[in-house]
Amino acid sequence: MRYFVTGAAGFIGSNLVDRLLEQGHSVTGFDNLSTGRLQFLDDAQKHAQFKLVLGDTLDSAALAEALAGCDVVFHLAANADVRFGTSHPHKDLEQNTVATFNVLEAMRGSGVSRIAFASTGSVYGEPEVFPTPESAPFPIQTSFYGASKLACEGLIQAYCAGFGFQAHIFRFVSVLGQRYSHGHVFDFYSSLMKNPTQLQVLGDGHQRKSYVSVQDCIEAMSVALEKACQPINVFNLGTDETCEVQDSVRWIIDELQVEPEIIYSGGSRGWIGDSPFIFLDCTRIKSLGWKAKHSIREGVVATLDYLRANPWLLEAKA
Amino acid sequence: MRYFVTGAAGFIGSNLVDRLLEQGHSVTGFDNLSTGRLQFLDDAQKHAQFKLVLGDTLDSAALAEALAGCDVVFHLAANADVRFGTSHPHKDLEQNTVATFNVLEAMRGSGVSRIAFASTGSVYGEPEVFPTPESAPFPIQTSFYGASKLACEGLIQAYCAGFGFQAHIFRFVSVLGQRYSHGHVFDFYSSLMKNPTQLQVLGDGHQRKSYVSVQDCIEAMSVALEKACQPINVFNLGTDETCEVQDSVRWIIDELQVEPEIIYSGGSRGWIGDSPFIFLDCTRIKSLGWKAKHSIREGVVATLDYLRANPWLLEAKA
Repeated sequence: MRYFVTGAAGFIGSNLVDRLLEQGHSVTGFDNLSTGRLQFLDDAQKHAQFKLVLGDTLDSAALAEALAGCDVVFHLAANADVRFGTSHPHKDLEQNTVATFNVLEAMRGSGVSRIAFASTGSVYGEPEVFPTPESAPFPIQTSFYGASKLACEGLIQAYCAGFGFQAHIFRFVSVLGQRYSHGHVFDFYSSLMKNPTQLQVLGDGHQRKSYVSVQDCIEAMSVALEKACQPINVFNLGTDETCEVQDSVRWIIDELQVEPEIIYSGGSRGWIGDSPFIFLDCTRIKSLGWKAKHSIREGVVATLDYLRANPWLLEAKA
Repeated sequence: MRYFVTGAAGFIGSNLVDRLLEQGHSVTGFDNLSTGRLQFLDDAQKHAQFKLVLGDTLDSAALAEALAGCDVVFHLAANADVRFGTSHPHKDLEQNTVATFNVLEAMRGSGVSRIAFASTGSVYGEPEVFPTPESAPFPIQTSFYGASKLACEGLIQAYCAGFGFQAHIFRFVSVLGQRYSHGHVFDFYSSLMKNPTQLQVLGDGHQRKSYVSVQDCIEAMSVALEKACQPINVFNLGTDETCEVQDSVRWIIDELQVEPEIIYSGGSRGWIGDSPFIFLDCTRIKSLGWKAKHSIREGVVATLDYLRANPWLLEAKA
């Protein structure tokens, strides 16, 4: 199969590219390197079956040219910065909603009709049902990021209804593992490298979150694409486990063998749009035979291991 | 109060403007006259409290200038053409999603934080629960129009969460009454004026729809703005009645005293994205004391009465 992966140099994208190449597929990666890293594609670049196109999803012509002839589009490129949505509301609109429209139009123009899309559990806002199933009550958005991903889901579904596309939409919890270079593990690690005696934590530490390892996440997407054959297939993607922010703080501290004073900023939300409790019902994806192999703690440790082995990443972001 | 109404020269907009002026408010209308009609504002233009600004919601600077100083924004301007979504997918994205973003940004820039928004029952796609409540299961979109309105709802909610806006979001069924100049009543009337011996009807005539009269619709919005005080207030807006397309065909024929041969195109949907059954649960808005005063048949007849009294409207669209 010929895959086209937007955000190919990103965290999930580059791990996905490696997996697809391992499986013998050919892959065209598309990335504007705004947050992606060429280094994440070092292994992929050794493959004859891999091609990287440097381009932006807001450049319709570049997209159309790059994805022509592929069988399946993995659309992962996005502004994935949930926390700073209110600093630049246009970013989520442009880089997520408009960009997804461009991808869909490029696909339509090229006769490509299969899309796998990285959505987010944030589309549930602050749900009232836990664990939250895909059929949870009509959500109210609490973040620009969630709102933009919801808009993307709707657009993709309209292309399925209007133009016979087939879609696999994945609502992820936070993903952990090698090459994860933002989010709380990165921030805490980065902060503790600078000052191991103190750690500032947003919120009261009791926000309950769920995480999935990037390897489990990619395996789940692969299983879903193989086995779920409806025109529109929506899957939550997480684990049966949750942890509090303070748990993951403790794991990080233990792993790094430091003893910082921990200062909580207070409040049940770390920032506007931070959901104090995320726990998705993953019965649907599990019914296809997929099961998470890694615990949250293992995901946290794998992320730390990668960061310790790749100090350039911290320097690059400094 | 000072109201700002986008789509002021449109069907619902112009009726709303008349009502707000009657109630003694001052109103700035904003319209690009792409589908709105200056004639709809003939009464309003006689009011000293009314000002019309000709402008486009895609023109951020014009919007910002026009809405500065108002208390409440009624954002009604939209591409309301559900049926031809697949002919121009970008239209719903631009004129609905991006335009709504522009309105929200203009409000933020001017310190205006109250918005009333015309959404649609189409955001439910093809629901499985009837009558469909606001908390229906997470919907799957079936039209570009519905997808774009869902995107607008999400954006508005993100502004509420992020910037302290207050929103009243109304999910309308189809609205009928004076100045309604598209949709099935207009199309059937227009067709029967040209040829009273034959009427082409999309679908099998058994699509079940719900309609509300524009006067009831405006009354409901007014009640909701007065009585619902949450940061985000979402209301279905329809009647407890439904009718089949063939019922409304019969009412129109009876009213016009014609006897056409009726030719159904067949199929349970009139077009891609046409929902074969629309029936919203309006318990929430009724709990505020609002009740529809007009039956669907009365709405159909009021629409016909207006079209017969205003033949220029047919000529203008010919």
